[in-house]
Amino acid sequence: MFFHKQELQFTSSPSKPDPAYAKRMQEILGGQYGEITVAMQYGFQAWNSHLPGKYRDLLCSIGAEEFGHVEMIATMIAQLLETAPVEQSEAAMKADPVLAAVVGGTDIQAAIVAGAGVRPVDSNGNPWQGSYITASGNLLADVIANANAEMQGRIQVARIYNMTDDHGVRDMLSFLLARDTGHQNQWTAAAKELQEEGIEELPIPSNFPLSKELREEEYKFINFSDGQEAKNGSWANGPTPDGKGTFTYLDGPEGTVPWPAPTQPDERFYGTTPKPNVVEKVKGAVKDKVSKK
Amino acid sequence: MFFHKQELQFTSSPSKPDPAYAKRMQEILGGQYGEITVAMQYGFQAWNSHLPGKYRDLLCSIGAEEFGHVEMIATMIAQLLETAPVEQSEAAMKADPVLAAVVGGTDIQAAIVAGAGVRPVDSNGNPWQGSYITASGNLLADVIANANAEMQGRIQVARIYNMTDDHGVRDMLSFLLARDTGHQNQWTAAAKELQEEGIEELPIPSNFPLSKELREEEYKFINFSDGQEAKNGSWANGPTPDGKGTFTYLDGPEGTVPWPAPTQPDERFYGTTPKPNVVEKVKGAVKDKVSKK
Amino acid sequence: MFFHKQELQFTSSPSKPDPAYAKRMQEILGGQYGEITVAMQYGFQAWNSHLPGKYRDLLCSIGAEEFGHVEMIATMIAQLLETAPVEQSEAAMKADPVLAAVVGGTDIQAAIVAGAGVRPVDSNGNPWQGSYITASGNLLADVIANANAEMQGRIQVARIYNMTDDHGVRDMLSFLLARDTGHQNQWTAAAKELQEEGIEELPIPSNFPLSKELREEEYKFINFSDGQEAKNGSWANGPTPDGKGTFTYLDGPEGTVPWPAPTQPDERFYGTTPKPNVVEKVKGAVKDKVSKK
Amino acid sequence: MFFHKQELQFTSSPSKPDPAYAKRMQEILGGQYGEITVAMQYGFQAWNSHLPGKYRDLLCSIGAEEFGHVEMIATMIAQLLETAPVEQSEAAMKADPVLAAVVGGTDIQAAIVAGAGVRPVDSNGNPWQGSYITASGNLLADVIANANAEMQGRIQVARIYNMTDDHGVRDMLSFLLARDTGHQNQWTAAAKELQEEGIEELPIPSNFPLSKELREEEYKFINFSDGQEAKNGSWANGPTPDGKGTFTYLDGPEGTVPWPAPTQPDERFYGTTPKPNVVEKVKGAVKDKVSKK
Amino acid sequence: MFFHKQELQFTSSPSKPDPAYAKRMQEILGGQYGEITVAMQYGFQAWNSHLPGKYRDLLCSIGAEEFGHVEMIATMIAQLLETAPVEQSEAAMKADPVLAAVVGGTDIQAAIVAGAGVRPVDSNGNPWQGSYITASGNLLADVIANANAEMQGRIQVARIYNMTDDHGVRDMLSFLLARDTGHQNQWTAAAKELQEEGIEELPIPSNFPLSKELREEEYKFINFSDGQEAKNGSWANGPTPDGKGTFTYLDGPEGTVPWPAPTQPDERFYGTTPKPNVVEKVKGAVKDKVSKK
Amino acid sequence: MFFHKQELQFTSSPSKPDPAYAKRMQEILGGQYGEITVAMQYGFQAWNSHLPGKYRDLLCSIGAEEFGHVEMIATMIAQLLETAPVEQSEAAMKADPVLAAVVGGTDIQAAIVAGAGVRPVDSNGNPWQGSYITASGNLLADVIANANAEMQGRIQVARIYNMTDDHGVRDMLSFLLARDTGHQNQWTAAAKELQEEGIEELPIPSNFPLSKELREEEYKFINFSDGQEAKNGSWANGPTPDGKGTFTYLDGPEGTVPWPAPTQPDERFYGTTPKPNVVEKVKGAVKDKVSKK
Repeated sequence: MFFHKQELQFTSSPSKPDPAYAKRMQEILGGQYGEITVAMQYGFQAWNSHLPGKYRDLLCSIGAEEFGHVEMIATMIAQLLETAPVEQSEAAMKADPVLAAVVGGTDIQAAIVAGAGVRPVDSNGNPWQGSYITASGNLLADVIANANAEMQGRIQVARIYNMTDDHGVRDMLSFLLARDTGHQNQWTAAAKELQEEGIEELPIPSNFPLSKELREEEYKFINFSDGQEAKNGSWANGPTPDGKGTFTYLDGPEGTVPWPAPTQPDERFYGTTPKPNVVEKVKGAVKDKVSKK
Repeated sequence: MFFHKQELQFTSSPSKPDPAYAKRMQEILGGQYGEITVAMQYGFQAWNSHLPGKYRDLLCSIGAEEFGHVEMIATMIAQLLETAPVEQSEAAMKADPVLAAVVGGTDIQAAIVAGAGVRPVDSNGNPWQGSYITASGNLLADVIANANAEMQGRIQVARIYNMTDDHGVRDMLSFLLARDTGHQNQWTAAAKELQEEGIEELPIPSNFPLSKELREEEYKFINFSDGQEAKNGSWANGPTPDGKGTFTYLDGPEGTVPWPAPTQPDERFYGTTPKPNVVEKVKGAVKDKVSKK
Repeated sequence: MFFHKQELQFTSSPSKPDPAYAKRMQEILGGQYGEITVAMQYGFQAWNSHLPGKYRDLLCSIGAEEFGHVEMIATMIAQLLETAPVEQSEAAMKADPVLAAVVGGTDIQAAIVAGAGVRPVDSNGNPWQGSYITASGNLLADVIANANAEMQGRIQVARIYNMTDDHGVRDMLSFLLARDTGHQNQWTAAAKELQEEGIEELPIPSNFPLSKELREEEYKFINFSDGQEAKNGSWANGPTPDGKGTFTYLDGPEGTVPWPAPTQPDERFYGTTPKPNVVEKVKGAVKDKVSKK
Repeated sequence: MFFHKQELQFTSSPSKPDPAYAKRMQEILGGQYGEITVAMQYGFQAWNSHLPGKYRDLLCSIGAEEFGHVEMIATMIAQLLETAPVEQSEAAMKADPVLAAVVGGTDIQAAIVAGAGVRPVDSNGNPWQGSYITASGNLLADVIANANAEMQGRIQVARIYNMTDDHGVRDMLSFLLARDTGHQNQWTAAAKELQEEGIEELPIPSNFPLSKELREEEYKFINFSDGQEAKNGSWANGPTPDGKGTFTYLDGPEGTVPWPAPTQPDERFYGTTPKPNVVEKVKGAVKDKVSKK
Repeated sequence: MFFHKQELQFTSSPSKPDPAYAKRMQEILGGQYGEITVAMQYGFQAWNSHLPGKYRDLLCSIGAEEFGHVEMIATMIAQLLETAPVEQSEAAMKADPVLAAVVGGTDIQAAIVAGAGVRPVDSNGNPWQGSYITASGNLLADVIANANAEMQGRIQVARIYNMTDDHGVRDMLSFLLARDTGHQNQWTAAAKELQEEGIEELPIPSNFPLSKELREEEYKFINFSDGQEAKNGSWANGPTPDGKGTFTYLDGPEGTVPWPAPTQPDERFYGTTPKPNVVEKVKGAVKDKVSKK
Repeated sequence: MFFHKQELQFTSSPSKPDPAYAKRMQEILGGQYGEITVAMQYGFQAWNSHLPGKYRDLLCSIGAEEFGHVEMIATMIAQLLETAPVEQSEAAMKADPVLAAVVGGTDIQAAIVAGAGVRPVDSNGNPWQGSYITASGNLLADVIANANAEMQGRIQVARIYNMTDDHGVRDMLSFLLARDTGHQNQWTAAAKELQEEGIEELPIPSNFPLSKELREEEYKFINFSDGQEAKNGSWANGPTPDGKGTFTYLDGPEGTVPWPAPTQPDERFYGTTPKPNVVEKVKGAVKDKVSKK
């Protein structure tokens, strides 16, 4: 259950409107790594959680905070758009280069669709979508996904920080940057704690029996490019981070196998199929292929 | 430049066709965390790389390997669909419960659109899309995003491993699981190496000056839910993983601020605006708001 | 700012799991008219509101309630999936018709992607998207859009009510149906109040000057089909609902005009263009067209 | 069956080309509430209609008219783009601020993809999509959805009316505004007539038995925000619009219930699950939960 | 302008309902190559046409016919869904394997969203989208795109023909197949006529000056795979179809060039950049690169 | 299996950065007909191929070449963005019209999301999607689809050629144009060869028995528009390209049939249905309809 309070966690008002900047800010609201994504991601992880207690409480708490950040940014964008220009004809733009500059950089749907309002879209006007979130039910994987989201998110906030010199906007961004720093650290701490408590470990999912995977293929670094430096990294030599093996380096794949014979589906799919004698040959190949197993 | 070789890294043929399983396997080909995603993600990271040498070589190499995995899974799916049934009328399904079971679980577009073929879609038929990838230009963030992708990917492969008992399919999956284990470890090793070499550190992006963020808000855990356990986690007490501070716990937000006055855009947007006397009041509020800065 | 409370507005537990039903229920969570849509829609309308006071408070309140409904349904779906089957091979399905029936009707991504968990998607697995919401800044239009959303939403809940006989599920749906009834009425009441208070009226937007539209075209019903009954409706005769005119009936369009000459863009777009003499003719037509204005 | 006539319902030629304005106009062609949406929406409603006669004839007629409006706007946009500039290099833009202004505001795909042509996209270049339409089979709900669509549509046309001073464009828009006014009124009249004829009433769907919903929850206004004004609206006091009850006001939810125990899916989904002793506790909770019903 | 007639071009009624088949038929209505695509494609090509006369008349005519086919298929699907089952609970499916078979294969949104109605989506429930169409303004390219669309379309109709034995459905499909045959031939004839009349020729666009392309690279077949048969095709030897050259075969690329130095964007994008001495080296490389031009 | 080589097929460096042009170039990378589309299309066609030998080798070869073109364009775009401006505030734009011009035309996500990097999106920022490709399993249809893709692709490259005067960019485009010319010719040659070898012919799919289609409807040109010129085309008279018939011209449809009675689905879908006496009448009509077959 969610309760709304008509206050904000931090001041979210620009010194003055700036519709072109509003478009940029949409990225951290409705983009792949915007606030809607993290709010929804943490919410769905909580709802899919199988573990009661501190980890679920953590998800619930930061999730609710992020819904408040959605509101803060939405409130800011609406104010940035407050004096968005209506007159956007070519004539007006010719007469006023400043208007032209701004109009070229604004989200035209913010004007036409929302009447100088905020929308759940990114800085290119792509609508937010549910496929941005990650909620697998595996807590360690998801907590790392959360750290990843906060990292990408903080990068984007840092970038748009430099696209304005409005003090009001920068104040709010400095607050959001600090919270992103905190959340990066908090998810990282949670990932460490999950491993220390023996709940999950690498490789994820750690409860899948390693005996079912082809263990001799696990720790090879196989070079599929002709760069000569990759072999010098810690990923090609020495102990593996999961503490279960040693990396080795191969200059290319070994033990490759021929392509299987092409498929021959039911002829009523009207695909293009080989003439009968080829079919016989192909079928023989398939038969050989299976019988060798 | 890419060169194609008509061999596979590992055997990719099922013991027998299974169109219902083909649909499930589409997830690890064309889903959010499927092979197309990682192949394209590592490629775009390489093309956006600003750092020549071992890290870019690493991206190029694993990227090219993943394009080969795209091909392996595509080849497998085409074979799983080889005897997909054409007759899918209600009458046929009534007469043959086995057919009905299979048809209910198959991707109908694999039949109608691709003629019993593989497609760049996920297990629900959603087409793969470019917004699945992450390539920010910040190498540490991206390498962690890669570890995240391999983790989610390995979880999904582990899940579909249990949805079949076909030896051919399981063989290929056991190979892919091993490679995912390796890649999880390799990206994790790269993340560690990047930090050890002083190229990047937490919080990401580490070259953004911390002095520009509101430092007193960084390491608070602020509870926005009523769970009582979150305060007991390592994210609410003790040193922060970035080594730059100490977590503190707050039972709720402090120093919140009132909502700013509603916006009053140009009347030619035909939004609903308050009567004149309210406008005056509201404008006063805005004026106050700005003058206090 | 949003605060989360680890309680639900109403009991949201099924009598027993039912993964096939979980897929159906996704529609009222992540579909075009699901709870995510209304929660986000009312939120964005509040953030875009230009009118302080009771209408904005109304938006904030119902919006926050709907986020709680998102949680209730998510919680229900996670429980419906609790025993979702892992074994989904063709062999297993052949052996167990019941399994086959269930598997055919479940969302396979709920299993593979979310590990038997809930996701922000509709009943066909399409991810929720920001383009589902409406928040124009015009309050009367938006409140009618809200009534529309609650109507479509209640229809869908009513439909899935009949797709289960689980008492736990039906209990929760009977609660949601009642709230939808209430919200339909509340948005309808708000629409009436906005008009009675003279804030907005038909046609929307009422603050656009009618003098700028071609008034003689306003109230014609022009028949573009050959059905003979449309002329008998109240939309073809008598006073118009906005109180500003009288409907008239026409059996087809009047005063139609010829198609303008085809366009002749810059030849460097490499479109197919007419030979010179045709160009001359066409340009003449254009010239005539413009000079007649 | 549809027949095409090479005439337009109204003049649709601009005084002169204006590629920047063409981009804005795409919204009312291919946007969420553009002409493609209404044409397709009324068509699908007609094809899903269960009621022969005047209502279906109404849908057929306005639907066909709207396909003609699609053509009118497409024709207009193609002409607005007629002199779209090909030279869009940075150098060219530096030399000619007017070109820069126009280029900044144009749809670049109109040039590259369509050769200075019109496309089925909105003003941000998002392709039109089938999920924009509403066609539920419930006639009253759908007719209200149609009124909603015409209202949002007319708002958007009104907004872009002010973004040009081209007489040709404004003439066409004044025609479209008038038709939108008419259609708003016609759908509103149809909604009223459906209720007067006793075909449908509030709450929609009226043929769902009210006895199946939790009637005591129907007419409460429950405040989930801390705004103090919502309680003064007609939605919180007095008779309900459906004539079936009386609104009451609550300052917050009553009778809330605890969150159900977290789910424990099959372990082969490799989610993170509690240790055995927690599982026992959780299962107990589940057992209690169900047995209490 | 479009006029609607309440008749169909051909009988479009099934012998009896079949909701599972309705889902399959959605592909030829709302899929990538369904009737909505061709209707809209030919319409937009007509509206973007620069050439008055027989070619535009052809586009207008077939476009309008296709809108009628949209209606025919929509009408058919609505009837196929006429007895779609409402009861879709797990219990019901267990009791009735026939129901289970049907439910597993139906579009659940057809039930929940449209009330047993047709929708503008494909057979997997993906909404139709504007990016399916092609309308470039180059008439020969577009007419070939149309032939392509009719070919893919006829393949799909042929496939679903075999998925039913309902006489009513097959009758309608035999009509559509014939029309697809006709349209394939008509677009092919138009492509030939355009070339014979000298309006366009290969390579498309033929009005782009060949002197601007690197003519020595035009007709090489360069083998990037290790298959040994491609060199035996007519695409690797002999005269080219455009009559302008001769194909040659290369066993791999020649004259390849090194990768350019990695980019070094503004540091305020917070990407990961090399240490200063590497920067110097990299910049030198760039300088060399440019100065050599 | 794919192998990567850190070289390019042709020089891909601009003379100088040009972020506005980078946005335009995204179209030929991640657009509907960009290089990602053709690379993936030819790959999936190869993986779905049922015919071993020269045709599959052809698909593999050109597919791998196109992945290299993806890399060439990505490399070019990254360099074009190399000096993309960070400062994009309204203030900065007012002060510097050149900056304003560039900023208005750049892809803001290239800056915020990718840090002045390339992304798998089109020139409007729409992410690339799997539904752009065609791979039906019918080789002649698919090879024609490939010719179509190369034609549309070459048109787009030709258009953006004129949007820059940068020698480095134009050099690369002149190479790509030549390869597009070659590929257009190669797919056209393959289509001819497939027909000459008797593998497939028109109408596609040629292995669907013509006797199952309504042969008398095949070669009619039926005018659904009022244009008078279409009847003069080779599509309305004379022999058909498939060599199987003769075109005839009709001035409109013949033998049309009445609309079937509206559907009457289960009342628990809560659609709007006619009153009982109408139902009887409608059911009668349905009964008549079926019994006449």
